[in-house]
Amino acid sequence: MLVRDYRDVHAQETGLDGVTVRWVISVPEGAPNFAMRVFEVQPGAVTPHHQHPWEHEVFVVAGTGEALGEDGVHPLSPGTTVFVPPMEKHQFRNTGDEVLRFICVIPTVPEALPQ
Amino acid sequence: MLVRDYRDVHAQETGLDGVTVRWVISVPEGAPNFAMRVFEVQPGAVTPHHQHPWEHEVFVVAGTGEALGEDGVHPLSPGTTVFVPPMEKHQFRNTGDEVLRFICVIPTVPEALPQ
Repeated sequence: MLVRDYRDVHAQETGLDGVTVRWVISVPEGAPNFAMRVFEVQPGAVTPHHQHPWEHEVFVVAGTGEALGEDGVHPLSPGTTVFVPPMEKHQFRNTGDEVLRFICVIPTVPEALPQ
Repeated sequence: MLVRDYRDVHAQETGLDGVTVRWVISVPEGAPNFAMRVFEVQPGAVTPHHQHPWEHEVFVVAGTGEALGEDGVHPLSPGTTVFVPPMEKHQFRNTGDEVLRFICVIPTVPEALPQ
């Protein structure tokens, strides 16, 4: 088994202001079906308002914010879980004063992985 | 999207003393590829020392304990991630004084899902 603290995994820039991602368990670690990432969104920062053919399964670890879905805005705080179905347009926003940190799991389909 | 606090999902008995599971995102919620569960292991309690053909991707949210793999024992604390490859024998143990709470994601293969 591979055991490590998520903080020991490099926080990569995403090209978005105030948003980094740590690929904690993915194809390089041997994951055959899905990948676990940890996102960190700084206060005031947001993820893209976009859609794609793969789903997200999210668990909020720290901070506060909101998730925008096709049905409106939902509050986020530690312990909130979010299922974003394939092709639903979505965005995560940090509306608080501290970092918004969440786990986001995706399938390891090639189009969802870093190029 | 489906947004809810993990605490609003029923903590099911597992048949193991001091171990419950909340299926927060799975097939009934529309998950096509993998399922997110939240396990709660009470002080002194352990999960089965077993193996199976599917992988685990784990993130420790609270508490302390250890993960037993085929390579030995690894400490667990908040922020520890664990990848258990398919067929590796493993066990999670709460060696602390508080509940050990961790996210555990599995593929939605029929043999891994509740019967």
